[in-house]
Amino acid sequence: MKEISKLLGYREDIRVVDATLRDGGLVNDFYFTDEFVKALYQANIKAGVDYMEVGYKASKELFDPKKFGKWKFCNDDDIFEVFGSDPLIPLACMADVGRCDFKNDIRPKADSPLSLIRVATYINTIPAAIEMIEDAHKKGYETSCNIMAITTAQEGDVKVALDMIGQSPVDVVYIVDSFGYLYPESLARLADMYLECGAKYGKKIGIHAHNNQQLAFANTIEAVGDGVDWCDATYFGMGRGAGNCSMENLLGFLRNPKYNLFPVLNFIETHMTKLREEGVVWGYDLQYLMTGILNQHPRTAISFTKEKRQDYTEFYKELIGLD
Amino acid sequence: MKEISKLLGYREDIRVVDATLRDGGLVNDFYFTDEFVKALYQANIKAGVDYMEVGYKASKELFDPKKFGKWKFCNDDDIFEVFGSDPLIPLACMADVGRCDFKNDIRPKADSPLSLIRVATYINTIPAAIEMIEDAHKKGYETSCNIMAITTAQEGDVKVALDMIGQSPVDVVYIVDSFGYLYPESLARLADMYLECGAKYGKKIGIHAHNNQQLAFANTIEAVGDGVDWCDATYFGMGRGAGNCSMENLLGFLRNPKYNLFPVLNFIETHMTKLREEGVVWGYDLQYLMTGILNQHPRTAISFTKEKRQDYTEFYKELIGLD
Repeated sequence: MKEISKLLGYREDIRVVDATLRDGGLVNDFYFTDEFVKALYQANIKAGVDYMEVGYKASKELFDPKKFGKWKFCNDDDIFEVFGSDPLIPLACMADVGRCDFKNDIRPKADSPLSLIRVATYINTIPAAIEMIEDAHKKGYETSCNIMAITTAQEGDVKVALDMIGQSPVDVVYIVDSFGYLYPESLARLADMYLECGAKYGKKIGIHAHNNQQLAFANTIEAVGDGVDWCDATYFGMGRGAGNCSMENLLGFLRNPKYNLFPVLNFIETHMTKLREEGVVWGYDLQYLMTGILNQHPRTAISFTKEKRQDYTEFYKELIGLD
Repeated sequence: MKEISKLLGYREDIRVVDATLRDGGLVNDFYFTDEFVKALYQANIKAGVDYMEVGYKASKELFDPKKFGKWKFCNDDDIFEVFGSDPLIPLACMADVGRCDFKNDIRPKADSPLSLIRVATYINTIPAAIEMIEDAHKKGYETSCNIMAITTAQEGDVKVALDMIGQSPVDVVYIVDSFGYLYPESLARLADMYLECGAKYGKKIGIHAHNNQQLAFANTIEAVGDGVDWCDATYFGMGRGAGNCSMENLLGFLRNPKYNLFPVLNFIETHMTKLREEGVVWGYDLQYLMTGILNQHPRTAISFTKEKRQDYTEFYKELIGLD
């Protein structure tokens, strides 16, 4: 928290990325209706959101299109159909190292509805991430590099990785707290490392938080105070497991008058509440707190949730046994 | 966040106060069963919680005992019956300025199961609070002064109030974010003022947070990092409106080995989940976010919740109209 006097002002450079379809898609296997997606798009326009992430470019060899909604694959033609030929907000799509066929599935930007390719990688596949970044950059896209599960990486490795990525043509480098393990203090330390790299190589820094410890919003605004400019958020916090930084929290905090809270509330009332009633489950609960505290992948907690278990203490014993 | 290097260590002076019965009692009109209270007491002992707040000393002239559970009034004999003659954790009770008959209802400590009297006041009734503090101090209790709704007070008034309270025999002065309006940055500024008073007069400082913006835990650990020693928390965050800092979050964060998370998880699984299933409702939701952002009392949001309304946008319009 280094901008203590600036809470009433704002920084022009802040960018809000709506990741509802992408991280939220991990909750419902990307089965969003066109009506939902179109309404979300309109809400984002009215709310002043800067980028809208529409899903993944996932490999159809690795993932069966019959088992997922179309936003897992984000065919350009599917996007055009819903968003029209000239989207009013720059659209983003995530491409995972090792889980996509980027050479074929990512067309030149001139032929695509997308503006931003977000390359997601673990710390041990940075060269593959850079190859994808270079490919997307050459095709004309803005790019980001999202280093996932950063809390399991060694500080020395993070520095090396940042130095490698810094020399690539990437525009934004993201701190990704996949496991919801970070406290604001520990985030601040990471942010310093990323911002140093950003200053050296002229890159923007981003934050993608998870809510395992009810800190997704707190960590996001800590990052903003530290100098991080790109913030991921999702409507009603919809995202894998404990979910993400809530868009309603974030837009309630940011002071740039281009942002508006009301369309977000309106969309949640009309569309997100319905999803919940249909049985789509995400958000803070004890099982996610436990994996977060233990710095573990949330997959066990997601299974616990899907099985509708409530034996939290048994689950805790299982997790401790895994450690 | 001023203790960035100390996340792996701990400060001996930290005190955790379980406020589940007191702030949680505001949700269910204090109708906790003896079984629940006894189990909570055992959980607190096992978890290493330092103080357990059992409810209010409310005036029976102002509040009809037929309309509330007994923890609204905390008769000494009722407490003895449940906790025995010599409680293993120091017990606390809250007494509101203007809403209790402290001269008669608070006995000398030697005859009482209570150890700590927490005097709750607004900024405009500090002399009355000091009268109560002096009374309780003379009777042999530890005391705290909890200045509620602090985010509606002027900074100059807060300084005057702290100086008055500092000269009283009170032991602990609490920052109370009743409306859930504070961000960690704004909390840090308040904490500096309180800590300055604490240093001058030899008082400890405490934090009582609400979760309207999903920041109750974040604000509590921000306060800890700033030097605040006394932390209120409630199991599963149970408390008025959006609830409080969750005990499970807080004990997952604190590193003193005297604290144990497992008994908290166990109690939640066995008792809190049941409360929820019985229809007792608390916790983060949009209506509380809105009153929090607007720095308003949550009473309108509580009504919205009780009426099972889901028209969030209409509610927002109503709030804006109130401003």
